[in-house]
Amino acid sequence: MFQLVWSDEDGVPAGDRGLAYGDGLFETLLVTGDRPYLLSYHLDRISRDAGRLAIPVARSELDRVCSQAVARYSSLYDSGNWVLKLTLTRGSGGRGYRPDPRAQPNLIISHSAAPAMTGPGGVVVDFSRITLTVNPLFAGIKSLNRLEQVMAARELRGEIFEVLMSNRDGHVLEGTRTNVFVRSGDVWITPPSATLAVAGVMRRHVLDRLHSAGHQVREAALQLEDLVGDRCQGVWLTNSVLGVVPVRNLAGHDLPVDQRLATIVGSPAILD
Amino acid sequence: MFQLVWSDEDGVPAGDRGLAYGDGLFETLLVTGDRPYLLSYHLDRISRDAGRLAIPVARSELDRVCSQAVARYSSLYDSGNWVLKLTLTRGSGGRGYRPDPRAQPNLIISHSAAPAMTGPGGVVVDFSRITLTVNPLFAGIKSLNRLEQVMAARELRGEIFEVLMSNRDGHVLEGTRTNVFVRSGDVWITPPSATLAVAGVMRRHVLDRLHSAGHQVREAALQLEDLVGDRCQGVWLTNSVLGVVPVRNLAGHDLPVDQRLATIVGSPAILD
Repeated sequence: MFQLVWSDEDGVPAGDRGLAYGDGLFETLLVTGDRPYLLSYHLDRISRDAGRLAIPVARSELDRVCSQAVARYSSLYDSGNWVLKLTLTRGSGGRGYRPDPRAQPNLIISHSAAPAMTGPGGVVVDFSRITLTVNPLFAGIKSLNRLEQVMAARELRGEIFEVLMSNRDGHVLEGTRTNVFVRSGDVWITPPSATLAVAGVMRRHVLDRLHSAGHQVREAALQLEDLVGDRCQGVWLTNSVLGVVPVRNLAGHDLPVDQRLATIVGSPAILD
Repeated sequence: MFQLVWSDEDGVPAGDRGLAYGDGLFETLLVTGDRPYLLSYHLDRISRDAGRLAIPVARSELDRVCSQAVARYSSLYDSGNWVLKLTLTRGSGGRGYRPDPRAQPNLIISHSAAPAMTGPGGVVVDFSRITLTVNPLFAGIKSLNRLEQVMAARELRGEIFEVLMSNRDGHVLEGTRTNVFVRSGDVWITPPSATLAVAGVMRRHVLDRLHSAGHQVREAALQLEDLVGDRCQGVWLTNSVLGVVPVRNLAGHDLPVDQRLATIVGSPAILD
């Protein structure tokens, strides 16, 4: 079992390994009133990735705490949208980097207003100057080691909604807080999760929807040409709080914008 | 100026970006009684690397806080060794990953007993199964993004004092908490800081000592052969708290052990 920290009541112990080493994970859930969106996707991911980091956590406890948190905070937002954040750390203790296998994890709960949603007209995106380095051991894990995303997010200026990061092989991987889908000919393409820094919950949900609607989907490395070449019929960003966001301009290239991916995926209200 | 958090008095705000994203840096200083060891090396490094992360901090303020901290805690340890830890984070605020340029950094101060020192007979070391991936943007920075070191430190078992990590090109880079020096023929070799995850303060100090004593030093990629081949006359680990530690056995290979590097570098007492 973990130690629960309600961030509106308590600080985090200074010896917490989440702070010391980024030794933990987090999830940010969109909640409408008292209805969390994609809850099971989020809890599946954090449970699975806690296992990969050998942080013990019971899925049933996470479920219980989410219910508690929603009951506690939903009245602050009437029936509007808000964001529930779960931060799971390995807790305190150990000898330096070396964890104490008996350490009790901390689960820190916080909430915030939902960000402004984007309109259907699409967003402006650029390429980041920062190369993303992904250790296969942590690929896809929404860990607390996010300095690359922080430094890339400093490039967001003016109307630039997101920057896309590539690995050292030149493959386009993801945005700072979004995954990427491209429509190329008859096929949807998104990079494989084993190559990603963060494999988003919305990415997983979009893939499930595309598969169940019978679409052709390829999880494959994205080349620059896939995004700005002639075959590209559109680029979308996905994020569990922001939803499915079409890109209207990528690094100066105008792209076709339509709502087909949003329609396939459906809105939070429909899905919940 | 930063907000000071004395960890024996206060917790860390749950919104701190050090916890959220590993958005910060740390230093651990060996202190004997009220005398911090390699203080200027530590404060030079954290000031320089804070600049690389665009976290504003005044070197003079860090100096002042270190004096305060030593005055506050030294009596707890009589004239013995202890460890002073500084954790500098970007503070709270911003929009997700994107920092608020007006955020006030937090400086968190904590202390602990010094670890047991190793004897002159040398330590047993193995190779880690975990590949180290270093983003050149953060090379050498002792940031709070340390999941690779945490997971590698889980491999430390029994008499294994340290594990050495290599990059995906097969170059041996460093231990979980130590840098590596090899004596090969007449030359000292250590990997270049631009390739390292953490470029230690003791590494810098050892390099300075070797140079000023007129030794031949090469900052170059370390191949496996450099460590276990015929030309290897010894391998040493360096860490600002543990000092200079000879390796007597590396992954089953016995290595010659002598005190020459420790002699060149001197003991903390001599150096201070």
